[in-house]
Amino acid sequence: MHAQHTQHTRGRFITLEGIEGAGKSTQLAPLAEVLRARGLEVLTTREPGGAPLAERLRALLLDPAHLGMSATTELLLMFAARSEHLEQCIRPALAAGRWVLCDRFTDATYAYQGGGRGIDPARIALLEQLVQGTLRPDVTFVFDLPPELGLSRAKSRAGTTDRFELETQRFFAAARAVYLDRARAHPERYRVIDATAPLAEVTQAVAAELKAIITSLESRP
Amino acid sequence: MHAQHTQHTRGRFITLEGIEGAGKSTQLAPLAEVLRARGLEVLTTREPGGAPLAERLRALLLDPAHLGMSATTELLLMFAARSEHLEQCIRPALAAGRWVLCDRFTDATYAYQGGGRGIDPARIALLEQLVQGTLRPDVTFVFDLPPELGLSRAKSRAGTTDRFELETQRFFAAARAVYLDRARAHPERYRVIDATAPLAEVTQAVAAELKAIITSLESRP
Repeated sequence: MHAQHTQHTRGRFITLEGIEGAGKSTQLAPLAEVLRARGLEVLTTREPGGAPLAERLRALLLDPAHLGMSATTELLLMFAARSEHLEQCIRPALAAGRWVLCDRFTDATYAYQGGGRGIDPARIALLEQLVQGTLRPDVTFVFDLPPELGLSRAKSRAGTTDRFELETQRFFAAARAVYLDRARAHPERYRVIDATAPLAEVTQAVAAELKAIITSLESRP
Repeated sequence: MHAQHTQHTRGRFITLEGIEGAGKSTQLAPLAEVLRARGLEVLTTREPGGAPLAERLRALLLDPAHLGMSATTELLLMFAARSEHLEQCIRPALAAGRWVLCDRFTDATYAYQGGGRGIDPARIALLEQLVQGTLRPDVTFVFDLPPELGLSRAKSRAGTTDRFELETQRFFAAARAVYLDRARAHPERYRVIDATAPLAEVTQAVAAELKAIITSLESRP
C-alpha cells in the first residue's frame, strides 16, 4: 500500500503560516507524525531557507545588521531563497511522492512584505508566477492569534531577536489581516487554527484537522 | 559653474559592459578622470555589489561553491543586489547631481542570465521594471572582443577563478551576441568599443568618445 504513494502520485504540499509566536514551528513535528502514521513519506522544511544557499540568504534576511534593507531587496531575496528551496528540495520531494510540510511559504510574503511593508500584492503575484509557475500549496494552516500575544510569546523565548521580531505590533497586525483575508478568499485551501489556546490543544486541533483531510488530499489529481 | 551640476540637474548614469577580460574595470578610473577634469562630481561603482549587503550577495554569486545555483535564483539575486545598490548608492548620487560610472549593470543580466543561461528576456524585463522603474543608463560603453581572447586575458590575471569565469566559451559567445544586439537596437544609448586593441589605445578611444558626448549628456532633461 505505502509504495503506491511514492511510486504513482506526486506528494502533497502543506504549509504552516502565522505571525511570530503563533507556534507553527512547534506543530511541524506532530503534523509530520500524523502523516507518517498513515504510511506517507514526509519532508519537513522551512522558509526562508531549507537549502544550503537559501539558509545563507535566511541569515542575511534575519540579521538585524541589515535594518536598512529596502522592501524591494527583501522581497527579491525572499523569492531568491524560495527559488533555490523549490529547485533543490520541494519539487524533487513532491515528484518522488513525498509530502512536504513547510514552515512558511509565499503566504508569508503576502503577509509580511505585502501587509507589513506595504508592497503592492500585484508585484508579489508577479514574482510568485515567475518562481513557482503553477505550483501552490495544497493546504495551508494559518495559526491565528492577536499580535500582542504572539509578540509576548516570541519575546519569552530564549535566543536573540531577529530583524522581523524587531517590527512593531502594527506590522504584525497588518500581516495577520492579510493571512485572514487570504483564508477567507480561498476557504478550500486554508484552515484557520485558533492559536491562542494552550499548545497541547492547538496540536490536537490541527492534527485532527489534518487527519480529516488526508483522504481528500490523496484523491486529488 | 561646478555648483550648478550638483544643485540644479540630476547626474548622468554611465555603464561599462563587456564579457570577462574585456578590460572594462580598468577603464573606470581613466573615465572618472575625464569627467572630473570637466568639473563633474563622480561616483565609480560596480555590480553585482556597490553597497554593503549587495557585496555580500556578490560573494555568494561569484563563489564556485554555489555551482548548482538555479538560473532563476541567480537572476533574482542579481536584481536583489541591484535593488540595494540603486537605493543605497546610485539613486542618491544621481539625485545629488553626481555622475555615476558603473562597472556592469542590467545589460550584463540580459547578456549573462539571458544569453548565457537562456532565461527569457521578457522575464528579465519584468524584473528590470520592478526594480528600476523608468531608470536606465544614459550611456553604455560595450567593450567588445572575441570570448577566446577575453578568457585568455582573464586567466592570465592573478587571483582565483570565480563562478562565471568557470563558464565555457559558448556561454560568453552568447553573452557577447546579446551585448551587440542591444547596441545595434539602441545606437543612441550604446557605444561599442573595440577592446582587442592594446590597453592604452582602448583607454584613449573610450576617453575620446566620452569627451565628445559629455556636452550632449549635460543638456539632456
